[in-house]
Amino acid sequence: MSESSNNLTSRLSQQLNFLAEIDALKSVYRASTLTGEARHENSAEHSWHIVMFAMVLAEHANEPIDRWKVISMLMVHDIVEIDTDDLPLHAPRDPQREAKEQVAAERLFGLLPPPQAQEFLSLWEEFERGDSAEAVFARSLDRFQPIMQNSYTQGGTWPNYQVTLEQMHERTGHIEKGSSTLWEQAKSVFKVAVNHGWIKG
Amino acid sequence: MSESSNNLTSRLSQQLNFLAEIDALKSVYRASTLTGEARHENSAEHSWHIVMFAMVLAEHANEPIDRWKVISMLMVHDIVEIDTDDLPLHAPRDPQREAKEQVAAERLFGLLPPPQAQEFLSLWEEFERGDSAEAVFARSLDRFQPIMQNSYTQGGTWPNYQVTLEQMHERTGHIEKGSSTLWEQAKSVFKVAVNHGWIKG
Repeated sequence: MSESSNNLTSRLSQQLNFLAEIDALKSVYRASTLTGEARHENSAEHSWHIVMFAMVLAEHANEPIDRWKVISMLMVHDIVEIDTDDLPLHAPRDPQREAKEQVAAERLFGLLPPPQAQEFLSLWEEFERGDSAEAVFARSLDRFQPIMQNSYTQGGTWPNYQVTLEQMHERTGHIEKGSSTLWEQAKSVFKVAVNHGWIKG
Repeated sequence: MSESSNNLTSRLSQQLNFLAEIDALKSVYRASTLTGEARHENSAEHSWHIVMFAMVLAEHANEPIDRWKVISMLMVHDIVEIDTDDLPLHAPRDPQREAKEQVAAERLFGLLPPPQAQEFLSLWEEFERGDSAEAVFARSLDRFQPIMQNSYTQGGTWPNYQVTLEQMHERTGHIEKGSSTLWEQAKSVFKVAVNHGWIKG
């Protein structure tokens, strides 16, 4: 076998190893449930759904965005949960969370060959920092999708956490930075949710 | 409310209706199982995984490809299964299958507002026809991913269907059209699978 075909084989085997490892995202369960079935949603199917949100709703971004970038970020944004598990939005905060996620991101994306490992890690870090137009819009969708999901499932996790309208504004208000249209929609959903008693007014 | 904000509201509500409807893809179960858990894979999490395959393995395409196009096609390629259910590769063929899938695609993508409905339907049709470099590569990945998944789960569904090596070549040989590298890899997996008795030699 020539050196170049040896390199190819080793590069491909690192890539396949990463792709096998991330199968585990299908076994990370979120607080939210599916609309049609009484089971919890997992982070892999959530990631697919949120990328569909990006494909369908891209036109509502406040600023011009590179859709490919938004979609790539959303595809990888939850992969760290393979090591850290999901932390529901309304659960108590963990001060060590950020550090744990960074370690997880370095381990998981580090399975890829260079320079791909660095490219994927950078995508994830850009999403976490939220400092580009694409990351701002991707983060808006990441807050918006569970609001819609809860609205279809009698308030979903809101009643369990006894969430108030003020907390919703605090924790999801940055949807507006990425999309005023989606924020208006979220506020209409909150109004209905307060009327139903799913969110405390 | 002005006419333009009325239009926006109606457009957004069609988009959200589509995004709620496709939640059902999380309840379409495939023949294959997860690598780490004894349950069947669903088509939504499969779609996420296969898009990750595209993001990681795009460099192995035989021809230059627009990655955005490949990823968009793979994101939507299984949505018709909400109406038609999954048809495993090694299950008996259904002569009505294509017609049923076309009806499903028109109903589901037709929930979107124009011209988005047509854009999504065209993406799905391009994947089905397999006549662009992007569709050829996307279809290679769609055959390649279950081969890798089966190789990690003691042959997965192959022993149940008593699949032969000849059938594997017949049914997955077009991987080579999209990527010679991935086809070489698939053939190595078949060799191991024959040695283990998962595929009949």
